Amino acid sequence: MGVTFSTVFRHLSDPKLKGEIGDPTMYERFWQQAGDKSTIVIPGWQSMSYFSDAGSLCWFLEPDFAQEIIRLHKIVGNAVTEDRHIVVGTGSTQLYQAVLYALSPQDAVEPLSVVSAAPYYSSYPLITDCLKSGLYKWAGDARSFNKEGPFIELVTSPNNPDGYARQSVVNKSGGILVHDLAYYWPQYTPIISAANHDIMLFTVSKSTGHAGMRIGWALVKDEEVAKKMVKFVELNTIGVSKDSQLRAAKVLQVVISSCQYPTTLGSLFDFSAHLMEERWRLLRAAVRQSGLFTLPEFSPGSCSFLKRSFAPQPAFAWLKCQELMEDCEGFLRSNNILTRSGKHFGVSPQYVRISMLDRDENFYIFVERLSTIHLRHSIQDETGE
Amino acid sequence: MGVTFSTVFRHLSDPKLKGEIGDPTMYERFWQQAGDKSTIVIPGWQSMSYFSDAGSLCWFLEPDFAQEIIRLHKIVGNAVTEDRHIVVGTGSTQLYQAVLYALSPQDAVEPLSVVSAAPYYSSYPLITDCLKSGLYKWAGDARSFNKEGPFIELVTSPNNPDGYARQSVVNKSGGILVHDLAYYWPQYTPIISAANHDIMLFTVSKSTGHAGMRIGWALVKDEEVAKKMVKFVELNTIGVSKDSQLRAAKVLQVVISSCQYPTTLGSLFDFSAHLMEERWRLLRAAVRQSGLFTLPEFSPGSCSFLKRSFAPQPAFAWLKCQELMEDCEGFLRSNNILTRSGKHFGVSPQYVRISMLDRDENFYIFVERLSTIHLRHSIQDETGE
Repeated sequence: MGVTFSTVFRHLSDPKLKGEIGDPTMYERFWQQAGDKSTIVIPGWQSMSYFSDAGSLCWFLEPDFAQEIIRLHKIVGNAVTEDRHIVVGTGSTQLYQAVLYALSPQDAVEPLSVVSAAPYYSSYPLITDCLKSGLYKWAGDARSFNKEGPFIELVTSPNNPDGYARQSVVNKSGGILVHDLAYYWPQYTPIISAANHDIMLFTVSKSTGHAGMRIGWALVKDEEVAKKMVKFVELNTIGVSKDSQLRAAKVLQVVISSCQYPTTLGSLFDFSAHLMEERWRLLRAAVRQSGLFTLPEFSPGSCSFLKRSFAPQPAFAWLKCQELMEDCEGFLRSNNILTRSGKHFGVSPQYVRISMLDRDENFYIFVERLSTIHLRHSIQDETGE
Repeated sequence: MGVTFSTVFRHLSDPKLKGEIGDPTMYERFWQQAGDKSTIVIPGWQSMSYFSDAGSLCWFLEPDFAQEIIRLHKIVGNAVTEDRHIVVGTGSTQLYQAVLYALSPQDAVEPLSVVSAAPYYSSYPLITDCLKSGLYKWAGDARSFNKEGPFIELVTSPNNPDGYARQSVVNKSGGILVHDLAYYWPQYTPIISAANHDIMLFTVSKSTGHAGMRIGWALVKDEEVAKKMVKFVELNTIGVSKDSQLRAAKVLQVVISSCQYPTTLGSLFDFSAHLMEERWRLLRAAVRQSGLFTLPEFSPGSCSFLKRSFAPQPAFAWLKCQELMEDCEGFLRSNNILTRSGKHFGVSPQYVRISMLDRDENFYIFVERLSTIHLRHSIQDETGE
């Protein structure tokens, strides 16, 4: 079967990592077909300085990239950019930490609580607590949070891992909301309206598929918060790769142009929305055939960008194993499918998360394996294995 | 005078920042003259994955970049690469934090002390304490450190800000040494021998001048330490920009080739060593003319790479104002020279640090202004200003 999920994984120092991250290599095909338009050329003497725009609030943000971000949000209609500061980060992961730093008072007696409704992105607790910061602290599931005082609530919408649209769930005052909108793009979910929150995080990894660039951006309403985020990125990495920002600007330009003047290939969003639809169809068929799992069900919504109604088709499959199986990750591993257990997402190990953004070859192997698990399992039962 | 130090600075949100960082734009001229050889071309479909080399310890390190790092150290002779793991970082700033994370026990009762002999790099205390980590804590000047138990000692050699070669100064056991060798290149100091320490940090910013790339590397002897550093970069930014790593590989290749087959331009090190020599000559002349300041004095050493003997010509001038001036930074600011006060480096405000790596135009304005301060000052005294 050539390079499969399991053989790829076998060579990794941390074999779970690849399943954990959700590598968006599905997008390579679009960019191969798009050809030279998105090629970037950088001479050796360019972009040598630390500074991109010394006079602006975010002094390490490339102005061309900032401009393309605004144009992209305008054409897709997924976020309000007016009256917002743009802060660039080494992926939205760095911006998440910049937000925590910016929102935490420096002189507080105890660390600020950080919560998110379970199931939540498994990296949130790890990143939040890795340095045992005195400024902030992971406080778990937002639904059971009842501590007095200020707190940060992370709202990931559509949610990673389960794909549902979300709103704040903590029903008390003193909370500051941070919206992680990495997946609020028309290939994953209908664009219902332009998001209009105080702090919104985005990343090229999940919008255009360029994970290797390590580029994310934040749209931030409050100037002081934006300034503190800039300060964090300054302390953490003295700015963000200019080369990747220049490349991201070029890539966004091609995406915008693919929306304005679609070729036979269609826009990036046409291409990837179509692919996600097809993959979810295959996945649901495999799950039905196997009979051992369930998937989330979604209601259709009308997408203002794609001008049609469809149900969410998330970047991850949030699979629930039938009652009898208590360790779904282990069970699937024994069937050569590597996933990430629900326990990392704050819920039961009956759930697992699986990336839907792998290369075609790997995705087909995965659904093939999933669909035949029931059969193989029955045969094992019969032979007493 | 066109774009000068002061007008450039006036537009910055944090005017001190530019003086603080030491932007190495001096190198632009070399790369302009080197021409197209260092140009990088990246098609839109390349380097999309998070992974560079899934099977290796540092899974986000581009193999081509790793190879050029080894070749460069071999040809320059400034560091031993045998029996070392390479960890790439978003600048050596990120690697510094990765080292702190890697060396700090997760279950310690109190944070690990981090020390460095004053004057030390002003960002060390800021970065170390910015998140009030429970794992590690800035403990100031290594010379006066006398706390019991384990600690980390940072040895920056040549030292930032004063340019002197350094060794560990703490005279007790339990210390782990981290060598920041950002300036251990032949344009700044004679290469006496290949550094052979357990943890060594380098960066392209100070070696080739490409600060905007945000690329640094660590040479690490212990596998467990290297693995934990990789874990930190994974949590902090999920790897390092591939675009910048590919560009860095190309740039190092051109540097190596400039050493092996020098043109009339000479190697990067010939070019920049010559420039630094000329700048230090001008600076010392300006200081003599002014009569208000002193500079460090260095003894010559024999450089195995440049095959000649010369005295260190550091990337920063560590200027001491005469006894009467207590705030050297303020005094120079009133003379339109922006610097960074000694107080940020753990010593008296009689000292300031000034970058020697700015563009020619700015450098000449700076020495011109410095040389005439005495005269202007006398005139001001006479007119009672």
